[in-house]
Amino acid sequence: MKPAEHWLDDVKWQADGLVPAIAQDAATGKVLTLAWMNREALALTAQTQEAHYWSRSRRALWRKGEQSGHVQRVREIRLDCDSDAVLVVVDQEGGIACHTGRATCFHQKLADGRWTIVEPVRKDPTVIYGR
Amino acid sequence: MKPAEHWLDDVKWQADGLVPAIAQDAATGKVLTLAWMNREALALTAQTQEAHYWSRSRRALWRKGEQSGHVQRVREIRLDCDSDAVLVVVDQEGGIACHTGRATCFHQKLADGRWTIVEPVRKDPTVIYGR
Repeated sequence: MKPAEHWLDDVKWQADGLVPAIAQDAATGKVLTLAWMNREALALTAQTQEAHYWSRSRRALWRKGEQSGHVQRVREIRLDCDSDAVLVVVDQEGGIACHTGRATCFHQKLADGRWTIVEPVRKDPTVIYGR
Repeated sequence: MKPAEHWLDDVKWQADGLVPAIAQDAATGKVLTLAWMNREALALTAQTQEAHYWSRSRRALWRKGEQSGHVQRVREIRLDCDSDAVLVVVDQEGGIACHTGRATCFHQKLADGRWTIVEPVRKDPTVIYGR
């Protein structure tokens, strides 16, 4: 019999069963992604030590990097003071977290009243995804 | 007449009018908080260069540090690839972002199947808030 995982019960899941999860690169300190986890995604993230998320658009569990190969290997899992947000510190395979081929998803910077892309494409997405 | 702020329209606000906003310490690289912004909070954050949020529990606009003095001075405002999450890189006044008196709100670390507090209290909250 599998023991109850009390640490999963400590998380204050939203009404929709999700919690926001930030991924941070252990090597560079960059904030890579803001994604969502359900209970299964967080359990799998801890169990496999690879980041898993819940895709709200596809309504499906998603192992980060399953298509791109850009998996996130877990160094630390943290929970905030209100227990309603997760931080995952990761080793980012390939140094690319974004589907656009950039290191981080946060590549638009506000400058002079407009969003400007400030992170270079490290690898062409058509190469990453083979399209 | 005030010009339209198109950059605010570029943000994909949730149905509830909010967007998750991560604050990161410019000096230490620490992820400090995950909070929420509505349109007014993000506009004020850009305009005043001090982080403003929307408190979901109090249902009120909130200038970070208005009570504690631990304001967050904005270095950069970033938007992610899907335009549905914000990252604010800040100078954290006092080096304390959390209401518990810790540097970061993400002070619970998963270890051996339980959450363990791994960040020291830098200042007693009763001193911070004068209670």
